Amino acid sequence: MRVDLNCDFGESFGIYRLGEEKEILQYVTSVNVACGFHAGDPLVMRKTVQMALEQKVAIGAHPGFPDLLGFGRRNMAVTPEEVYAYVVYQIGALAAFVKAEGGKMAHVKPHGALYNMAAKDTALAEAIAKAVYDVDPTLILYGLAGSELIRAGKKIGLRTASEVFADRTYQQDGSLTPRSDPRALIVDEQEAVLQVLAMVKEKRVRSLQGIDVPIEAETICIHGDGKKAVLFAKRLYEALQKEGVDVCSIK
Amino acid sequence: MRVDLNCDFGESFGIYRLGEEKEILQYVTSVNVACGFHAGDPLVMRKTVQMALEQKVAIGAHPGFPDLLGFGRRNMAVTPEEVYAYVVYQIGALAAFVKAEGGKMAHVKPHGALYNMAAKDTALAEAIAKAVYDVDPTLILYGLAGSELIRAGKKIGLRTASEVFADRTYQQDGSLTPRSDPRALIVDEQEAVLQVLAMVKEKRVRSLQGIDVPIEAETICIHGDGKKAVLFAKRLYEALQKEGVDVCSIK
Amino acid sequence: MRVDLNCDFGESFGIYRLGEEKEILQYVTSVNVACGFHAGDPLVMRKTVQMALEQKVAIGAHPGFPDLLGFGRRNMAVTPEEVYAYVVYQIGALAAFVKAEGGKMAHVKPHGALYNMAAKDTALAEAIAKAVYDVDPTLILYGLAGSELIRAGKKIGLRTASEVFADRTYQQDGSLTPRSDPRALIVDEQEAVLQVLAMVKEKRVRSLQGIDVPIEAETICIHGDGKKAVLFAKRLYEALQKEGVDVCSIK
Amino acid sequence: MRVDLNCDFGESFGIYRLGEEKEILQYVTSVNVACGFHAGDPLVMRKTVQMALEQKVAIGAHPGFPDLLGFGRRNMAVTPEEVYAYVVYQIGALAAFVKAEGGKMAHVKPHGALYNMAAKDTALAEAIAKAVYDVDPTLILYGLAGSELIRAGKKIGLRTASEVFADRTYQQDGSLTPRSDPRALIVDEQEAVLQVLAMVKEKRVRSLQGIDVPIEAETICIHGDGKKAVLFAKRLYEALQKEGVDVCSIK
Repeated sequence: MRVDLNCDFGESFGIYRLGEEKEILQYVTSVNVACGFHAGDPLVMRKTVQMALEQKVAIGAHPGFPDLLGFGRRNMAVTPEEVYAYVVYQIGALAAFVKAEGGKMAHVKPHGALYNMAAKDTALAEAIAKAVYDVDPTLILYGLAGSELIRAGKKIGLRTASEVFADRTYQQDGSLTPRSDPRALIVDEQEAVLQVLAMVKEKRVRSLQGIDVPIEAETICIHGDGKKAVLFAKRLYEALQKEGVDVCSIK
Repeated sequence: MRVDLNCDFGESFGIYRLGEEKEILQYVTSVNVACGFHAGDPLVMRKTVQMALEQKVAIGAHPGFPDLLGFGRRNMAVTPEEVYAYVVYQIGALAAFVKAEGGKMAHVKPHGALYNMAAKDTALAEAIAKAVYDVDPTLILYGLAGSELIRAGKKIGLRTASEVFADRTYQQDGSLTPRSDPRALIVDEQEAVLQVLAMVKEKRVRSLQGIDVPIEAETICIHGDGKKAVLFAKRLYEALQKEGVDVCSIK
Repeated sequence: MRVDLNCDFGESFGIYRLGEEKEILQYVTSVNVACGFHAGDPLVMRKTVQMALEQKVAIGAHPGFPDLLGFGRRNMAVTPEEVYAYVVYQIGALAAFVKAEGGKMAHVKPHGALYNMAAKDTALAEAIAKAVYDVDPTLILYGLAGSELIRAGKKIGLRTASEVFADRTYQQDGSLTPRSDPRALIVDEQEAVLQVLAMVKEKRVRSLQGIDVPIEAETICIHGDGKKAVLFAKRLYEALQKEGVDVCSIK
Repeated sequence: MRVDLNCDFGESFGIYRLGEEKEILQYVTSVNVACGFHAGDPLVMRKTVQMALEQKVAIGAHPGFPDLLGFGRRNMAVTPEEVYAYVVYQIGALAAFVKAEGGKMAHVKPHGALYNMAAKDTALAEAIAKAVYDVDPTLILYGLAGSELIRAGKKIGLRTASEVFADRTYQQDGSLTPRSDPRALIVDEQEAVLQVLAMVKEKRVRSLQGIDVPIEAETICIHGDGKKAVLFAKRLYEALQKEGVDVCSIK
């Protein structure tokens, strides 16, 4: 039994700092590095890659919409052709920093609105999968467990990593409870840890409707900003190890 | 005897079109593709790379300052660290498109103010050379003949291509006549062709002061926009061939 | 009987030129000036305002989404608060140029996706109307005839101008035929002129379904780019005058 | 005897927070609000203006270079025409928010590299002064005491406010000690307070060379970010009041 813990990283921009808790790197096994569209800039990307290599966590590109003002969290009516090109561009930019520092990029995880739209929109999902495949077919595509993105990745021949969330509740169809629902977030940390353990060890999640739903949990999304996030990552990491789960990057 | 003819390409952005004379590709042997900072965008980059591969011209990255508003032509007080990161980023972004289309990037030529500043500023020149080398030491670095950039490229172990201009006059120290001087430009096309032939065949250029100056001419910069530019490129291409010069990309 | 002819203007950016046919100013009575978000930049705005004042056409702000890459034509999931702030910002920026040149801004017409979204989305429409009103309650709000934007403008107490299109077909509910329908555009210029005359003189438009629909036509949208656009504007202008329609800006 | 205490404000952008210590507003009498070029965005500008009006401090525009990545701190080779247009644009954008909230903009203070360049470059200084004057001749222009900007402002007929720094040392020619000099900054807070008192009350500053230099101190620049900055602002404010200096905005 094993699982990857991933978190977003390198989301600063220019003079602005965001989510730079270096300590989090001790408790995650892969990081998703912003590529300059929704966050990140060339200097930040370089430093982030250096930190990640030093800490020996797997490095992935975290491409987003060209919307720094909205942090890539706003849906945009983009075409599959646009998304394909945006993803190729951002993967390439990050890959160059990883290569320059002597490492190798391991995965790609779309960010924010792009991630959410690609979970449901087949054409966008396939555009992303093709972009990743065309640049490097050995890259692993991270996507929401059970999403169109995972399906598109498998279809084109990429290795995929199904992602689950520690602090989000699930519906009986296996989807995430929308954030508009007050019950969307799990605030109790112990509850979040137990949900993860069930997902990883028993491949199921208890839905809000009280029914157990089968789920694939290959990688767990951890928040990377704030001291509280570091403590939760540590707690989850230790709980998984105690239960005999191998916490390691996707291999 | 041989020489490369290069021109800037892929300088459109979004709805805006600039310098998209496809015919120019018949008369040049390498193109410098804008990478999204001073011009170009992901969709444009993809199409530009496709066109270049179809026409079998060598493809290079054309990194510039993050100044779309000023088309990368305004000097900016950047640090070598910033320039290093900007160049790594842009090379990587373009390389991904070239790779996705089944090609291989051949060279890097800085754009506009970055090109001019790197011709004289050793620290910036070395930052650019290191960025190119760190991403891919087989890339060829284009720079102004006799510039700090060429020196920095050789020093770090890159292959370099010394660039000369068909339509610019030279000073007796081998530098370009500043654009502020009314004699900076050669408007007569025949004169421009003859200057190029002398530079390529006899490795010298007649300076404005009337003295012959030795010059290395491995690649010639051709303007890519406008019908007139296409006609001049054709004329120069044919004149070089007629004189027995092998017009081909840097090998 | 009278009508305003408006066209978008000042859509260049940096080195890029777009839609700068100065001749069009002879045949329109108001221009919508891009404000730097989807197109336009400070230098372009200044020159555009100078041209418009010289030609004595009414000047309006043409605020759009912060999406230069997509020319403001892509829907974005923005909040009413964001839209309010984007519109205040852009109106203010243009107003300063008009004031600096000794003129007075007359109207506001949202651009592209913002215009289309505000035609149907009440909350966005009200945010725009409030932004316009808060900055200057004497400004005239242009919007699609029969749209939420016109309703929101009237509700808050703004003067409004209902806009119709010369080259678009209409549905029997008074809405524009979606561009996805092959019959969306009127390509025959004479037909377009006749549609405008009917809309202005008889306050009705013949829908694609063959039924006449009542329509308010206070201002007509004219395309501003390309020589063909200038010729059509001239033709429409002359046809309206010949029919005794007073072609003048909204008063 | 009176003096204005000003600080930069509203420098957040999108998801990024910077310098939002609301407490500082108790100890300053005017704020310079970023206008979206080097920092700030429409939502931030609106909230900043609301806070400033609530606290009854004077509001000024803080225009900078279009360089969010460099926070407007990097010199750029801009023309006076570009600077004129950048300043008109940014003043207008902020003015609209102030007007929408029922206030009136009082002053303009250029930011960062634009401020520094305009202190020495007569053409840039005059372009800025003309931009301010053309938009609203009642605006007060803030500039470095003894700078070209102050001279340009007076020349065109603007009211000006000569700015001094609490925590910077001065040269015997009245200029600031360059930051490259290790003695450029005054780290001792008491020393900084005493320097300000001498500048305000005796219109002189003791230069690093030990010679007293006459100086005009109409407004004092206070740093606005960090808890320490708030404490220093409080201390300075109270020291000035205790010495009978009227701490109030420029009138």
